Amino acid sequence: MKAKVYVTLKNGVLDPQGKAIGHALGSLGFAGVEDVRQGKYLEITLAETDPAKAREAVEKMCAQLLANTVIENFRVEI
Amino acid sequence: MKAKVYVTLKNGVLDPQGKAIGHALGSLGFAGVEDVRQGKYLEITLAETDPAKAREAVEKMCAQLLANTVIENFRVEI
Repeated sequence: MKAKVYVTLKNGVLDPQGKAIGHALGSLGFAGVEDVRQGKYLEITLAETDPAKAREAVEKMCAQLLANTVIENFRVEI
Repeated sequence: MKAKVYVTLKNGVLDPQGKAIGHALGSLGFAGVEDVRQGKYLEITLAETDPAKAREAVEKMCAQLLANTVIENFRVEI
C-alpha cells in the first residue's frame, strides 16, 4: 500500500528557499509569480494492507520524524 | 491563482535521501516500511487568472528551473 505525505511550512513561517525560487523565476523572465512556498513530498510503500491502519502508522511517522510540527503541517493520503 | 507542483525522481533513479528516511523509520520501530521516495512539493501563487495559461506558464517553469527533467518527473495541479 502506498501513502503520500505532503509536508508544508505553516503560514507565517519564513520560507527563504521558496523566496529564492521566486526570485530565480523572476530572473528567468517569468512575470506574475507572487509567492512560492516549498514543501516536501514523500511516497511511502507499506506492507500494511488496511487503509485505516496504514494512515494511523504514517501519521505517527510524520509526528515523530517526517515533519517538524512546530513549524510544519503534514497531510497524509492513502 | 495557486498552482501545486510535485517533483519526483524517475523510476530507477537512486534516492539516498529516501533510503535514509526509510532506515530512520526502521530504527524508530516502524516495521513494514518497504520503500520511501522523497520528492519536492511547491505552491506557486500566480497573478494569472486563466487556468490554461497558468498551467502552461508553470509547466515552462518546471522544465526550465523547478525540475531536472533528466532524472525527475513533474506534475502540475491548478
